[in-house]
Amino acid sequence: MNVHSKSVRRPESVTTGPIPGSRKLYVSPACSPDMRVPVREIPLDPSSGEAPLRVYDPSGPYTEAGFAPDLAAGLPQLREGWIARREGLEAYEGRGIKAEDNGYASGDALVAPCPAQRTLRRGRAGGLVTQLEFARAGIITEEMIYVAHRENLGREAALAGAAERRNDGESFGADIPDFVTPEFVRQEIARGRAIIPANINHTELEPMIIGRNFLVKVNSNIGNSAVTSSVAEEVEKMVWSIRWGADTVMDLSTGRNIHNIRDWILRNSPTPIGTVPIYQALEKVDGDALKLDWEVFKDTLIEQAEQGVDYFTIHAGVRLAYVPLTASRVTGIVSRGGSIMARWCLSKHRESFLYERFDEICEIMRKYDVSFSLGDGLRPGSNADANDAAQFAELETLGELTKIAWDKGCQVMIEGPGHVPMHKIKDNMDKQLRECGEAPFYTLGPLTTDIAPGYDHITSAIGAAMIGWFGTAMLCYVTPKEHLGLPDRDDVKTGVITYRIAAHAADLAKGHPGARLRDDAMSRARFDFRWQDQFHIGLDPETALRFHDETLPKEAHKVAHFCSMCGPKFCSMRITQDLRQEAAALAEQAVIENGLADKSAEFLEKGGKLYLET
Amino acid sequence: MNVHSKSVRRPESVTTGPIPGSRKLYVSPACSPDMRVPVREIPLDPSSGEAPLRVYDPSGPYTEAGFAPDLAAGLPQLREGWIARREGLEAYEGRGIKAEDNGYASGDALVAPCPAQRTLRRGRAGGLVTQLEFARAGIITEEMIYVAHRENLGREAALAGAAERRNDGESFGADIPDFVTPEFVRQEIARGRAIIPANINHTELEPMIIGRNFLVKVNSNIGNSAVTSSVAEEVEKMVWSIRWGADTVMDLSTGRNIHNIRDWILRNSPTPIGTVPIYQALEKVDGDALKLDWEVFKDTLIEQAEQGVDYFTIHAGVRLAYVPLTASRVTGIVSRGGSIMARWCLSKHRESFLYERFDEICEIMRKYDVSFSLGDGLRPGSNADANDAAQFAELETLGELTKIAWDKGCQVMIEGPGHVPMHKIKDNMDKQLRECGEAPFYTLGPLTTDIAPGYDHITSAIGAAMIGWFGTAMLCYVTPKEHLGLPDRDDVKTGVITYRIAAHAADLAKGHPGARLRDDAMSRARFDFRWQDQFHIGLDPETALRFHDETLPKEAHKVAHFCSMCGPKFCSMRITQDLRQEAAALAEQAVIENGLADKSAEFLEKGGKLYLET
Repeated sequence: MNVHSKSVRRPESVTTGPIPGSRKLYVSPACSPDMRVPVREIPLDPSSGEAPLRVYDPSGPYTEAGFAPDLAAGLPQLREGWIARREGLEAYEGRGIKAEDNGYASGDALVAPCPAQRTLRRGRAGGLVTQLEFARAGIITEEMIYVAHRENLGREAALAGAAERRNDGESFGADIPDFVTPEFVRQEIARGRAIIPANINHTELEPMIIGRNFLVKVNSNIGNSAVTSSVAEEVEKMVWSIRWGADTVMDLSTGRNIHNIRDWILRNSPTPIGTVPIYQALEKVDGDALKLDWEVFKDTLIEQAEQGVDYFTIHAGVRLAYVPLTASRVTGIVSRGGSIMARWCLSKHRESFLYERFDEICEIMRKYDVSFSLGDGLRPGSNADANDAAQFAELETLGELTKIAWDKGCQVMIEGPGHVPMHKIKDNMDKQLRECGEAPFYTLGPLTTDIAPGYDHITSAIGAAMIGWFGTAMLCYVTPKEHLGLPDRDDVKTGVITYRIAAHAADLAKGHPGARLRDDAMSRARFDFRWQDQFHIGLDPETALRFHDETLPKEAHKVAHFCSMCGPKFCSMRITQDLRQEAAALAEQAVIENGLADKSAEFLEKGGKLYLET
Repeated sequence: MNVHSKSVRRPESVTTGPIPGSRKLYVSPACSPDMRVPVREIPLDPSSGEAPLRVYDPSGPYTEAGFAPDLAAGLPQLREGWIARREGLEAYEGRGIKAEDNGYASGDALVAPCPAQRTLRRGRAGGLVTQLEFARAGIITEEMIYVAHRENLGREAALAGAAERRNDGESFGADIPDFVTPEFVRQEIARGRAIIPANINHTELEPMIIGRNFLVKVNSNIGNSAVTSSVAEEVEKMVWSIRWGADTVMDLSTGRNIHNIRDWILRNSPTPIGTVPIYQALEKVDGDALKLDWEVFKDTLIEQAEQGVDYFTIHAGVRLAYVPLTASRVTGIVSRGGSIMARWCLSKHRESFLYERFDEICEIMRKYDVSFSLGDGLRPGSNADANDAAQFAELETLGELTKIAWDKGCQVMIEGPGHVPMHKIKDNMDKQLRECGEAPFYTLGPLTTDIAPGYDHITSAIGAAMIGWFGTAMLCYVTPKEHLGLPDRDDVKTGVITYRIAAHAADLAKGHPGARLRDDAMSRARFDFRWQDQFHIGLDPETALRFHDETLPKEAHKVAHFCSMCGPKFCSMRITQDLRQEAAALAEQAVIENGLADKSAEFLEKGGKLYLET
C-alpha cells in the first residue's frame, strides 16, 4: 500500500506485487455475482475525504498482493466453465507439435513445452462459436457481461457528479453510452463495430473489448531474444507490458522455439495475444518467401489457433496489382508481412494466396474464434508516402475482406499506419470507417514527423492521441528504440505509459463519461498538496516519486504545501488557498462591519461569496 | 564532422562544438552581402548523391568549430552597427545597479557583474524605436532582412522539387507565403501578426521572428540554482537549451544575485531572453505581495530593459473582478504571477496596478523595444478548468491591452495555457486569434491529460503540436519534471527536443513549404540504409547513435542493409529494394522474351515499368 513497495521479481519468475499505492480488487456484475472482474483501487489520503479511486486494470493476477505465479501450471482458467458449456464446441485431438514448429530445435537447444494441460476445442460446423455469431443470434455471452462491467468503471461516480463535472467532448460520430450494458456490447459486436478477441482455447483470458464506443486500448509488442536465457524471461516481457497498462500483447517472435515459447506465454497471459502467422510460416520454409504456399500457411494457422492465439494479423490486402503502386514511394513497403507477400506475388506474377484463400482462412479462424487483424502491408513508412494510392487501395480491399469475414462469422479489426502528418490523420480515419463499415481500427502511432529517431514514442503519441480521438479503437505502441534497435525493459515501459497517455487523452476528448475522474482526482490532489496521492494516481507512481525526491528527498516534503518548482515563497497554489481563506474571512467581517468602501462591497457582492461556497 | 565528436565543455565555461555530423555556416541575403545568417549544414553520404541538408540553427556561435567563448567579454555585438545608426535612439547613463537588484548580496555571496561593456541606449520621444514603429513607417530594418533570410531556409530547394514533393497542408487561415521576403516580414509586423523580440540593448542577439505565418518556435525556461557554483553554470543552462533547439529562453530566476546573473546570460545569449519582472519586484519587497506597488515595479522594468531583456511577461489581465471567477475551480490560480497579482487585488480591494498603469508600462517598454508577452495569470491548471470563464475573461482583457500596446508602438504576443483536453484546444486558439487580432500566441503545452506526472513533456507535446498546427506561434516547453521538481540537464534536453518535434509536426501540418525536406531526407536515408545519415539528420544524433549501438555496436552494422528490429531475414526495406531490382530485371527479360503469360504481362503493363523509372 505504500509507494515505497517495489515491483518484485524472483529469478526464474516474473514481476509481481501491486502497483505502488494501490490494491487489486475483483468486483462482480449484479447479474453475475460469481464473475470476478479485476479493478485497481487507489486509496486516497483520509484527510481528503475522497473515496478510493478505481482504475481499469489489464495487469492480471500478477498485481494481486501475494500472488505466486506457477508458470508451468499457467494461470487459472477463468473461461473454462463458460467454454465447456458451449454446445457449438467440441473437444478433439490437435495436430500435435511438429519439429518444424520450433525450427527443428532439439536437445539442449529446445525450450521444453509448457506442461500446463488444457482441453483443446474447436467449433462444430453450424454451431455458435464466435462472439459475433452469438451476438447475431441475440445471445449475450459471459465475455460480453465481463467486458461491460469492466468498461463501466467509474461511470456511476461520474454520472452521479454535478452536471458541470460530467465530461463533454467531441466524439466525431462515435456513439458512447452513459452506461455500458451487456446488451450494448452485444449490439456493437453484432454489427461488427467492436470485437472481443478471445480464442476458445485461451481459457486463461480476462476478456476485453476493442471498439470505437469503448475505452481506447493499447497494444504492446514483444519478441524473443536471440539468446533465450529462460522461458521466464520471455513470459516476463508480457507480464511487464500488461503491468504498465498494455491491453493486448503481440508476440512477434521469430526463429527457433517460437511454438513452445508462445505456449508458455499464452498459458500465463490474462490479455489477448496476437501474432503474425506469416512470420512462422516463413521460418518453416527457411526464410525464402518464394517457397511459401497455402499448405504451410494453413498448417501454421491451425497450429497457432490450437494454442489459443486471440488474433492473427493477415496481410490479405496486399494484392499483386497494388505492389507497383509502391514503386514511386520514398520508402517502398515497410511492413514485414507486406513485403514478404509483395515479393511472393511479384516474383510469381500471381495473386496473393492470402487473398485467394481468404474464405478458407475465415473458416479456420472461425472454428477457434480467432479475430482478424487485417494487416496493412502497404502502410506508409514515411510522411511522404502517407495516404497514397497504395495505402488506400489496400484499405479498400480490407473493407471488402471485412465483409467476407463477417459473413463467415469472424470478428475483424483493421490495422492502420504508420507515418502520417497531422493534417492527413482525419482523412485516413474517415476512410477506414467508411470502407470497413466501422470495424475497429488498430493503428501503429501514427508518427507525425520522421525527424526524431530516439523519440518516436513521442512523434507517434501525438498522432496516436489524435487518431484515437477521431475513432481508432486500439493503439499499437511505439518505443523510443523504433527505427534504431530492440527495446529493453525501460523502453517497453516508456512505450506503454506513453500510449496510455495517448489513449486517455483520446478518451477525454471523445467524452467518455468516466474518463475525467482520474484527472480530476489528480488535480484536487495537486491543489491540496497531497503528494503521495499525486504519485499514486499517476500512470507511473515509481517514476513520479523518484523525480520528486531528486529535488526534495525528505519525507517532510511529501506533506509540504509547496514544491521545488516555485518554492514556498512563490507557490501559486498556496497563494490561492490563502486567498480563499482571506476572502472567506473578509466576507464574514463585511457582514459584521456592514460598512465597507464601495469597491470592496462591489467585489464581495460579485464574487466574495463564491469563495465561501467552495 | 563525425558523429562520434562529442559536445565539449571545459570547467568554468560552456558547451561548445558542432552538433555531431554537422557544421555551422553563415549565409548572406543577396540584398545584404555583409549580413551573416547562421545555418547548420548536414553533409550526407556521398554515395547518395544528395546535397547537404541545411537546417534552422538557433544555437549561436557556440556550435561553430573551434569557437572559444569568453563569457566576460560576451558575444560579438552583431546588432551594434545597426542600432548605432538609428536616429530614434540616444545613448545615456542608466540607473546603475542597486543593492536591492541582487537581493543585497555582498562580499563572497555577491556574484560579480559581467565586465562586458556596452553602450546603453533608449528611444527618444517621437523617434522610431520599435520594430513595429519601423514597420508601420514602411521601413525594413536589418532585423527584418535577417529573419526573412533565416525563415527562407530550404524553400528554394522545396519549391524547385517536383510538384508532388511540395508540401500540402491545412493552415486554418494562416497565410504562409512560398518565399519570405523582408517586405512580407515588415507587413506581418506592421499588422501585429508577428514580432521580432529584440531589445535595442541586446546587441548580441541573432534576430528571430514569432508569428503564425512563420516557423513555429520553441521557448525553454531556465532558473538559477539555490547554490550557484559559478556564473558559467548559469550561462550554460541557456547555451545547453539553444544547442538542442530552443529559439528563446526565459530566465525565471529568483533570489539573490539575479541582476548580475541575468547580465552574464544576456551578454552571452544569441537568442531573445524573456523574464517575468514581477518575480524580481516581489524579491525587492521581501516576498510580500501586499508591499508591491507601481514604483518598485516600474523601477524593475527599467532595470531589466536597460540590461537588454527582449520580452517581459506582464500579467496585466488579472483584474480584480476576475479573481472570484476562479473560486469554483478545481485548481484555482496556478500562474505564479497571476496568483501574486490576484492576492494583491483581493487583499487591497483594488484594481491591479498593472492594468491601471498599462499606458506607462507601454511607454517604458517602447523605449527599449521590449516586447510584451501578456501573461495568462488565470490559465487553467487542470483539464477541469480549461476554457472557463476566468480564463476567457482574462483573454478578452489581453485583447483589449494588445490594442493599447500596439497604439503605443509596442510589439505584443499573448501567453496561453496550460492544461486543455484535445477537444477544447481549437476553441481556445480561435478565441485568441479573434480577441487579440492575430497577435502571436505563445502557449505552455497544453497538457492534454493530468494523469501522468513524470511524462508531462509527452502529455503536453500532444497539445503543443495541435495548437501549433491551429495557429500558435511559439510553444513553451515542458520537461519530464513538470509538477514534480527542477529539471536537470537531461530533462532540459528532453524538453527541448520534444518541443522541436511538436513545432515541426505543426509546421508540416500547416504546409510550410520547406518543412518536409528534412523528413524526406531522413526517409530516403532509411530506405537506403544510410545509418550515419539517419543519426545526423535527426534532432538528437547522440541519442540515436547510442540507441542503435546498444543492439548493433559494430561499425559494420552502420552500413548493414538491415537493422536489429527485423534482422537480415525479415527486413522489409531490403525486400522492397530487392523487389525493385527483380522487377527491373523481369521487365527487361520480358522485352527480350516477348512471350510471357497473360497475368505477368498484365502486371508489367500496369506497374512493372514504374519500378524502372525510380
